[in-house]
Formats: sequence, structure tokens, C-alpha cells
Amino acid sequence: MRKPSRDDIVKITLEESEIPRQWYNIVADMPNKPEPYRNPATGELLEPEDMKAIFPDALIAQEVSTERFIEIPDEVREIYKQWRPSPLYRARNLEKLLGTPARIYYKYEGNNATGSHKLNSALAQAYYNKKAGIKRLSTETGAGQWGSALSMACNHFGLECTVYMVKVSYQQKPYRRSFMETFGAKVHASPTNLTQSGRRILEEDPGSTGSLGIAISEAVEDAATHDDTNYSLGSVLNHVCLHQTVIGQEAKAQLEKVDEYPDVVIACCGGGSNFAGIAFPFLHDKLTKGTKVRAVAVEPAACPTLTKGVFAYDFGDTAKMAPIVKMYTLGHDFVPEGIHAGGLRYHGASAIVSQLYDDGIIEAVAYGQKSVFDAAVMFARAEGIIPAPESSHAIRAAIDEAVRAKEAGEEKVILFNLSGHGYFDMAAYDYYFSGNMKDIEYSAEEVEKSMARLPKVK
Amino acid sequence: MRKPSRDDIVKITLEESEIPRQWYNIVADMPNKPEPYRNPATGELLEPEDMKAIFPDALIAQEVSTERFIEIPDEVREIYKQWRPSPLYRARNLEKLLGTPARIYYKYEGNNATGSHKLNSALAQAYYNKKAGIKRLSTETGAGQWGSALSMACNHFGLECTVYMVKVSYQQKPYRRSFMETFGAKVHASPTNLTQSGRRILEEDPGSTGSLGIAISEAVEDAATHDDTNYSLGSVLNHVCLHQTVIGQEAKAQLEKVDEYPDVVIACCGGGSNFAGIAFPFLHDKLTKGTKVRAVAVEPAACPTLTKGVFAYDFGDTAKMAPIVKMYTLGHDFVPEGIHAGGLRYHGASAIVSQLYDDGIIEAVAYGQKSVFDAAVMFARAEGIIPAPESSHAIRAAIDEAVRAKEAGEEKVILFNLSGHGYFDMAAYDYYFSGNMKDIEYSAEEVEKSMARLPKVK
Repeated sequence: MRKPSRDDIVKITLEESEIPRQWYNIVADMPNKPEPYRNPATGELLEPEDMKAIFPDALIAQEVSTERFIEIPDEVREIYKQWRPSPLYRARNLEKLLGTPARIYYKYEGNNATGSHKLNSALAQAYYNKKAGIKRLSTETGAGQWGSALSMACNHFGLECTVYMVKVSYQQKPYRRSFMETFGAKVHASPTNLTQSGRRILEEDPGSTGSLGIAISEAVEDAATHDDTNYSLGSVLNHVCLHQTVIGQEAKAQLEKVDEYPDVVIACCGGGSNFAGIAFPFLHDKLTKGTKVRAVAVEPAACPTLTKGVFAYDFGDTAKMAPIVKMYTLGHDFVPEGIHAGGLRYHGASAIVSQLYDDGIIEAVAYGQKSVFDAAVMFARAEGIIPAPESSHAIRAAIDEAVRAKEAGEEKVILFNLSGHGYFDMAAYDYYFSGNMKDIEYSAEEVEKSMARLPKVK
Repeated sequence: MRKPSRDDIVKITLEESEIPRQWYNIVADMPNKPEPYRNPATGELLEPEDMKAIFPDALIAQEVSTERFIEIPDEVREIYKQWRPSPLYRARNLEKLLGTPARIYYKYEGNNATGSHKLNSALAQAYYNKKAGIKRLSTETGAGQWGSALSMACNHFGLECTVYMVKVSYQQKPYRRSFMETFGAKVHASPTNLTQSGRRILEEDPGSTGSLGIAISEAVEDAATHDDTNYSLGSVLNHVCLHQTVIGQEAKAQLEKVDEYPDVVIACCGGGSNFAGIAFPFLHDKLTKGTKVRAVAVEPAACPTLTKGVFAYDFGDTAKMAPIVKMYTLGHDFVPEGIHAGGLRYHGASAIVSQLYDDGIIEAVAYGQKSVFDAAVMFARAEGIIPAPESSHAIRAAIDEAVRAKEAGEEKVILFNLSGHGYFDMAAYDYYFSGNMKDIEYSAEEVEKSMARLPKVK
């Protein structure tokens, strides 16, 4: 077969046999390793043992592993085939529209039923829990993408799934709830009467519409108090970042087919697993071979963890039940404005991503949501895919890179991760078209207050 | 590269270079050609000239063509690359669940932004209209899939797009409207004050929530009264069926890669273009080489056009503005119950599909919607894709074929078309899970009344 040229191809596909066989663990190559987690109650170093109440051994091992490559189980690779390898697109229409000499590529992770990259880790987590004899997984969900992914993964591996969905989302996004129920999950509007943490909140405020912090506490408590149940998290943790590296490995193989290598790799960054997924396999080249490649994490101006936060030990959740992590943080009780990219409203960032940022190995940039939606609509009209608000942060940054390349007359190669579609986010697009959407900045004052409450760690 | 085995592959993909270069026109091979259209006002034969007010010459030529193959323009093939060739899946998990010796394959047309096969024809129609110097296309939409596809197609080729959306859908499905607006379309809740037909309805009934029949009248009137504007239809017509044949041609090539040929090809059937798309390329073999292959059109029990209608001349729309067509019909003023598969609520069927059915070349079967949703949920849980209610009719029939194969101990090969996803139909799934969904039958009495009003044709 004739080798496809990068100039007449729209999407670069791979065979199922080319799905990666290993996940890439960047910790092996990091000059400074991420600091170990600490116990939220005592501030002491967290032992792997401490995590056994809520995670299976295999995932705990991955969480602390320094092995460079970790085998993907056949059972997981098999179900990856449902939508992987995901396509890599050349954004030819967008390039034309911008009149840029840059070549823009995007990896599309929205081509599965749950509509985002989250499924890559959900399936792996469900698999290891099933193998460990666990009967049920509990988790929280805000916007609903993670809950959808875990519901589908649990259904596939024959696990029950309990999702604590932030009450306001439960009411506003009934279709995400129906989606999870279609895959057999039990979905509760959090706070519930089913957990101590939930009951405590409802006693204080019977009309509480919930928060991600509360939902996490409920899900963790559910897992910790039931022997047959474990907890599952959709980002931030090392093993979640690890599972997402199938994205970048595939993208590398796809670019290779058209003799390309990116000058810059771009992804949105909330907890960090999506950014990790596409960027880490390229950073492997940078860290081990000195390859010149920039990696840019894009965050919302309303929650600018990397660009405006501090690198410090902080609690992973509002209720102080999750481990203390050395990370970039805006403070565990900082509550960002209700922007439409709900998946990017986490106060902290993955320990690995934070360490890489602090070491100057990766870059970060923040954008206001109006400017992000400008980019989303431009992209949708040019490329025919309606992007999720989260993913649109990466689009904004990619467009700006392409415009700079035009100004400089540079033939730059830009790669970004289109982590999900926006089918369930049309209300946000509606609001954008109403003309009322504004760029929302974070409150420096609120962050400062929150910083004063960081935990003291020896 | 090692040839993939049908037993370890999940999805069979093709290269972009394997996108078909021609559409297949089954009229060339039909033993009895479809009867020509007639003028709705006079009942006389419709001349190609009569269609010039609303269609460009190229599409009129395709509508009456007897050429076996018609070249796909490069500009259309180029944009097909955005999502074509679409994947063909082996439904291994569904087979396992059913314990059937049958091998079930499905072609998935939901892998584009508009979420259905409609885009195949929308792009072709927009292209020919643009080339003819037309500035704007008008159309109607009910559930919103066709309106979404045409909006995107017009945006791509630089045409304006006006969509008359049935008012009740406009109110109930705001996200479909936002979708069209994202691609720059102007969407009106029909009946409007912008057309004579609309004003007439509103005078009689100011609170009218509209109907597909009214919306068609408005869109046709808009096109007929503006020189720079043409009308566009999403199914029924010969040229629409023609454009959809890329589906079946790809499916044939994909099955060939794993040395398979279907015993039975199944698709849901409203106007008929989706069924035509997957079935006609296989019927080519049946009609020209005597290949044994069954083709089954699946319709809702609430609107059983083929299985319970009559083969007669009837108006294409309620307002009697569209041509008179010799087709299977339940009567142009028969209004089926409001089932969730809105795309299958048309009173008639494509002239070609009708003729093939009357000649015993294809089969048809009807199912109640509860039984269809039973199949949809079973499929979603097994295969990880939430199907559109329309497409789920095909799933129901495919499952029943597979169960019969099990009972007979036959190694049957079943192919069906999964024409779209159900992301915008979660309310229907919700209703299903509420336990209140019922199998709705058509009203034989209403059909009989409607039949009495068929046009008299010399």
C-alpha cells in the first residue's frame, strides 16, 4: 500500500494490533520524583498499606511504581479495541482558516460511548478491582464524564457501580444520569442520607446542592466502610495518569506514519490525567534523549492551579479524607466560579504534573472561558466536531500557537488532545451564543485565604 | 501485514483511499423501475423542469438517472474523510450474551459530529447547490438529525441554511437547535410568520405546536419564492438513497477483508434512505448475480408503512405541495403516535424501496417500541454504544435473527446498520427505565380513513 502523504490525509488511523501493549510510567525518567503522599490525619508518610481499604493491590503498586513500562492486561487491551486506536486528525480546514504555515494535528478521544478519554483508566481500574475479588466500585462525579466512563467499565467487567453525583448536576444534567443508569449504575444525588458525611451536611443544610468535595467524601466513606467495595478516582493519581498514556503513544506512532514530530504538545489540565496522557510519551523522548519538544498544560483562568497556585503539600479533597499531596494548589477549600468546563475546576493538580512544572520541564497557560468558546466554535465550524468545553482550552492554545507561527513565518508542528466531545454541553454553547458569556478570573483574595489553611507537614 | 482474523478483530477499518469513488444507483438493476413522480396539483407526470424551482440540475439528473454508478465529486469525498470509512464492528459481546452461533456485524454511522448517516447526503446536496450558484438552502427537521447534518454541510460549503423545526421539538430539544446554530444555521420554530403556509396555520390555531407536514410546506415555500434558495430533503427521494450507498459499499469491502458475506442485511426504515444505504450494494449482487442475500427493512409498529400500508400513488406531504409518488403509504394525513423514534414516523416510503418490496426482492418487519428499547439497552450494555431509537429497530431484528439461528443451530452471518447514536435521546431511555413505555400499535381505523383520501391519478 502506498504510504499516505500528510498533505492528502485527513485522519491517520492505526490497526487494532497497534494499540500499545504497555503503559508508560514517566516517574522512571523524572529527574526529581514526585514527593510521596502523606496521611491526612497525621501528616506522616502514607504507607501503601494505608490505601488498602479503598484500592486493590495492583493499583497501589502502580501508584508507587518506578518501572518505566507496565504491561496492559489482555482483557483491557481487548476492550480498548472497541474504539482504540483513536484517530489522529490533521486540522487542514482550521489551518486554512488561520492561514498559518503551521501543521496542526489533534488526537480525538471523544470517539467512544462515554465521549471522553476517561474510559482509558475506568476500564483498567474496573479490571484490577474485579480481579481482586471486589464486587462494587464507588465514585463521585460532577459533570458526569467520569461517572459515565466508570459505569460502562463496571458493566463490562461485571461489577456494581455506585455514583455520588453532585446534586446540582444531578438535577441539571438528567441525561448524564440516564446514561449511567443505562449501563446499570446506581446514581445518588449527593449529599445523600446513605453516609455519615452526607447526613452531617444535610443536618446543617437540608437544601444543600452538594459539591465535588462532599461527593468524594461520600464515595470514599462508602468504600472504606464496605469490605466488598473499593473507591475509584478519575484523575490526579499516578495510576490514572499512567493509564492515559495510551493516547500519546498512539499519537507518536500516527505522526511517525507521516514523518512528523511535534514541536509542541498541548492539552487541557484539570487533575492532569488528560495532559499526562498525550504529553508523557513525548516527554519520554525529551527526558531520555534530549528531544526538543514543548508540552503545554492549559487551564481555565477561573481555576489557574499551575499558573497562579503554589507548590505545597495540600489535602486532595475539601473534607480532608484523601491523602495530602505535594502539588500545585489553590488551596483545598478554594471553590472556583461555576465555569462550563466543570472537569477543570479541581483546586490541585497531579503530583507528577506539578513536579514536572516546578522543574521547568513543562509549561502552563490559562485562558478565560469566553476566549475558549470563541476557539471552540471556530474549531467546530472548521473541523466538524463540537468539542467539550474542557478540550476547547487546548484548542484555544493551539490556535494561538498557530497564529504566532504565522506571524513568525514558522513551519511549526502542533499537536493537541481533543479529549472529548461536547454533545452533553450544548447548554454551554447556547449560553455562549446568547452573548452573555464572560471571561471569568479567579479570585486572588479567595485563594490567599485558602492558602492560609494549607496543612502543616513535617 | 498479517491479515486480521474475524475472530480476534473487533472493528474492521478501511483506509481513506478506500472510500467509494461512486454511488450505486439500484434503479439500473431493478426489474421494475419505480413509477415516475406526478404533479401534486394536476396529477400529470412530473417533468424534470417542474423541480427546477427547488432543486439544482445535478440533483434532478440523479433523481431520474438510470446510470448504474455515479461519480462522487472529489470535494465531497474529501469531506467524507472527516469520518469515513466508518467502522464495521463484529458484535462479539452481543453474540456471547445471546449464545448464538451467528456472527453479527454492524456498520456504525454515528461516528460523526451530527451523529447519524444523514451527513452522507447533506454534504452531497450542499455541494451541488453551491456549484449551481445557490446561496441558501431551506429544510425542515423534526427530531433534529437531518437539520444538524444539513447545517454542518452548508457551513462547510459556504451556504446559508434555514431550518424549519417543528415547534414542539424546538421547545423539547433545545440542544439540537443549539447544535445547528453552532454551525451557523438559522433555526425557526414552525409554524412561523415568515411564510404563507405558516401564517395560515397560525391564523387558524395560534397555539399550534407544528408538524413535519407544516414544516415541509414552509421550507418548500421558502425555496420556491426565493431565487437564491433551494430546498433540501433528508430521505425518501432517489438521490438521497443514492448518496447513502457509500455505507453498503464500505461494508462489503470490510466484510471481504475477513472473508465474510452476509446472509441477511438489516436496517431501520422511515423514508428509506438508511435502509437503501446499507442494503442496495448487496442487492446489486442479488439482482445481477443471483447472490442469495436477504434484506430486511424494520419499521415501528406505530407507523408500519411497508407491512400494513398499500402500494399506491400518494402525496409526499400533508400540505400536498410535494410530488405524488407511487409508494407504500399509510395515507398522507395519517399521523402516527408520538413514538421516540421520530425519524421513523413518515407516512410513506421511498419509491424505490416500495417497488423492491412489492416485487418481493426485500422483506419488512415491524416492532413495538418497548421491544425495541429492550434490544437497545441489551446492545448498549454488551457493545458499549448507546444507539438511537431509530437504529434500535435494526438491533431488535438482528437479535431475533440471531436467536432463530441459535434455535436452528445455524452459522448465519448477520449485518445491520447502526445508523446513529442516542446521545440526544436520553430522555427516551429515561422513560424506558421508568417502566411506563409500552408497545404502541398503529390505528387501523385512522389508516383506513386516511386511505380514503388518496389522490386520484390517471
